[in-house]
Amino acid sequence: MLDLAIVGGGPAGASAAVYARRFEMKTALLFREPGGLISTAHLVENWPGIPSISGFELGEKLLKHARGVGAEEIFAEVSAIEKEAGGTFLLRAAGGKEIRARAVLLASGTFPRKLGVPGEAELLGKGVSYCATCDGPFFKGKRVAVIGGSDSCCNEAEFLADLAEKVFLIYRREELRAEPANRARVEKNPKIEMILSATPRAILGKEKVEGFRFERAGKEEDLKVDGVFVAIGREPMTGLLDGVEVEFSERGEVLVDEKKMTKTPGLFAAGDVVPGIKQAIIAAASGVEAVFGAREWLRKSN
Amino acid sequence: MLDLAIVGGGPAGASAAVYARRFEMKTALLFREPGGLISTAHLVENWPGIPSISGFELGEKLLKHARGVGAEEIFAEVSAIEKEAGGTFLLRAAGGKEIRARAVLLASGTFPRKLGVPGEAELLGKGVSYCATCDGPFFKGKRVAVIGGSDSCCNEAEFLADLAEKVFLIYRREELRAEPANRARVEKNPKIEMILSATPRAILGKEKVEGFRFERAGKEEDLKVDGVFVAIGREPMTGLLDGVEVEFSERGEVLVDEKKMTKTPGLFAAGDVVPGIKQAIIAAASGVEAVFGAREWLRKSN
Repeated sequence: MLDLAIVGGGPAGASAAVYARRFEMKTALLFREPGGLISTAHLVENWPGIPSISGFELGEKLLKHARGVGAEEIFAEVSAIEKEAGGTFLLRAAGGKEIRARAVLLASGTFPRKLGVPGEAELLGKGVSYCATCDGPFFKGKRVAVIGGSDSCCNEAEFLADLAEKVFLIYRREELRAEPANRARVEKNPKIEMILSATPRAILGKEKVEGFRFERAGKEEDLKVDGVFVAIGREPMTGLLDGVEVEFSERGEVLVDEKKMTKTPGLFAAGDVVPGIKQAIIAAASGVEAVFGAREWLRKSN
Repeated sequence: MLDLAIVGGGPAGASAAVYARRFEMKTALLFREPGGLISTAHLVENWPGIPSISGFELGEKLLKHARGVGAEEIFAEVSAIEKEAGGTFLLRAAGGKEIRARAVLLASGTFPRKLGVPGEAELLGKGVSYCATCDGPFFKGKRVAVIGGSDSCCNEAEFLADLAEKVFLIYRREELRAEPANRARVEKNPKIEMILSATPRAILGKEKVEGFRFERAGKEEDLKVDGVFVAIGREPMTGLLDGVEVEFSERGEVLVDEKKMTKTPGLFAAGDVVPGIKQAIIAAASGVEAVFGAREWLRKSN
């Protein structure tokens, strides 16, 4: 029986694990992919104390720290969290795996929002991607479409422009919603062509992506591209909470009290899955705060 | 004119400076001593991503990061913050120095609480200390008294026991209020002698500390010691706020809203000077949150 099961292997989960072990809690980190969202960042220059590091390396550093102080790592895709009769938590993972813990910290982060057009699911990994830094290098010298209009979308387009022959930035509104500085850089980039007021209709292709269909001014147009990068935001990863009582924000984030505890006693949440500014250092701190909350709760419920 | 003047050079201030510069704000860090409280920690093993580092080195790393992205460093002991007619802030520092900024982030941290007994002020730096890791090495092979009963007080006593010939741990209550694990370690340490239910009366000595006087069971006793380490807690550093409207918690911490803004528009606060768990990583994150708040505020008041 664990004292604390932490669902997620990003900055919130790993930082929480470091503190939980210092408090001598029997702790495990459960994750499918190590490092969390930050691991997909090409370069991180705002983790205080580290002027410049790849996201992958930072994710590794955090997990290594947790491992070094005795946090267990369990490769598990947690599908459900249930509270058992005795008050303990049962975490169900893929393959019938069951993990039991006295308290749980949900630090599961977010997953990319889907476009919801034909071809998207079918061509995933065959030219459809949600992470430019992960998959960009496969599109060297090719033509790609980037869908979205946010700051992070602009960054993805710029990153891809360094590799691809041509980048189409496709957005449904008349103007990008990114900050002026980001917008200006994208507009100036000779490799990036903007297609605005365009509604996505389909991702085309059989074995792999061959094109992107959108509607503009009432007319459908087909664009010849080799890859489609969807960058229209992210959603909190909360599907595994169906079996417990939890409240959500309008954006679907898990609501917590000032100790980072959810409506279900003993179930805590931190990081990008709770409301707040989405930054790695803020996620890390909220994970640590949750451990203080969990420690207090475990003592009381002893 | 600065966009943001940050008062304090610890984790909150330095992390805030990194973000402020990324947002292209003209930023300066104002501090008397670099690194903040963490700099006095013998060893830090809970800054996520860095398994083990001296507090001094960690403080340096954080400031170096801020410096590297263009944050100015001003050695200044800020004595007052005033809001001028035009809406800008005037920061007055020792020596008549004046610094002007559009927004201010107070990340001034805490200062050690005083015992308030005769001899304490007179013998400061002559055997009276508030920081075992800073001054402990001067007491190698000597006899010292440590005053207090908290977890951090126990840590100081243990740290000193490695150096000194003898450590007296003096506390006014019947039992230490530290965690059982810390208490047990102190009790087992052959170099540490506990004196409980003892009320401090005076620090004795002329040129330097020669003894410590306390009252126990209605009787005054004098202890021969070469050093007195006071570890009875810390207080928020808020004296410089007399000229602005700010609300305080019961503990004297600066109250802020969810954007980390105080009652005075444009004046933000973060780190150990605001309510919350006192940990470097949490201070750092709150500094970053304050910068997001300040950026939003500066844009609106443009």
